[in-house]
Amino acid sequence: THHDAPPAPPPWLDEVAWDERGLVPAIAQEVGSNDVLMVAWMNREALLQTWARGQAVYWSRSRQRLWHKGEESGHVQTVHDIRLDCDQDVILLKVTQQGHEGCGVACHTGRHSCFFRQLDGEAWQTVEPVLVDPERIYK
Amino acid sequence: THHDAPPAPPPWLDEVAWDERGLVPAIAQEVGSNDVLMVAWMNREALLQTWARGQAVYWSRSRQRLWHKGEESGHVQTVHDIRLDCDQDVILLKVTQQGHEGCGVACHTGRHSCFFRQLDGEAWQTVEPVLVDPERIYK
Repeated sequence: THHDAPPAPPPWLDEVAWDERGLVPAIAQEVGSNDVLMVAWMNREALLQTWARGQAVYWSRSRQRLWHKGEESGHVQTVHDIRLDCDQDVILLKVTQQGHEGCGVACHTGRHSCFFRQLDGEAWQTVEPVLVDPERIYK
Repeated sequence: THHDAPPAPPPWLDEVAWDERGLVPAIAQEVGSNDVLMVAWMNREALLQTWARGQAVYWSRSRQRLWHKGEESGHVQTVHDIRLDCDQDVILLKVTQQGHEGCGVACHTGRHSCFFRQLDGEAWQTVEPVLVDPERIYK
């Protein structure tokens, strides 16, 4: 029988300055609006899969496993562009966000963006509406 | 003599989910263009100073001190909006970025944004121009 070695990881993966946990933060930014939708974490395998499938795959720190964004909710992110910053330790994805009636829903609370709390002098105020009932997202 | 206790930190600071190092990532996004300019880190004092002065102050992990963005380069960031995400562990600042002839220069390389490397199939390619010679930024 013939055993192939697994394919070597592409050299560009080694140019990312993975932290001591093997992770970097990844920002998802919506193409068109340029809205910042969310930040999650990636390890090498998550970035490799994101690149290979053209959809965002993150590393879930809480579940300690790969997380294909939208795998439960259907709110997948199609990736158009992958950027790396000057220190090579943050990834920026330009994405199209699946969601509700043409409006992207990135947040597990059913909102467009995860950054829905605004500091209003003395307190964090919620300033973005819920577009989809979270109980209808995660059945 | 009269000794005042230092002012108590505002309660909203405690709602941020600081990590085990006491830090959270902070994204600077340009008002108007919505371009993502950079990501740096904040501790409690950095966020408090950012809020109090209306200019971005980060925590430099390499120098282990507060870093008033633009203190050397003049490329300060005026903060219009401070956002917190659903997990309360990432900050998003909406800023006006000082720079060169009306174009914001956030990156120490003299570029508009730190996210100037684009994954082009097999390699990271530099896709944004240098607007200011870095040697002229840091004299």
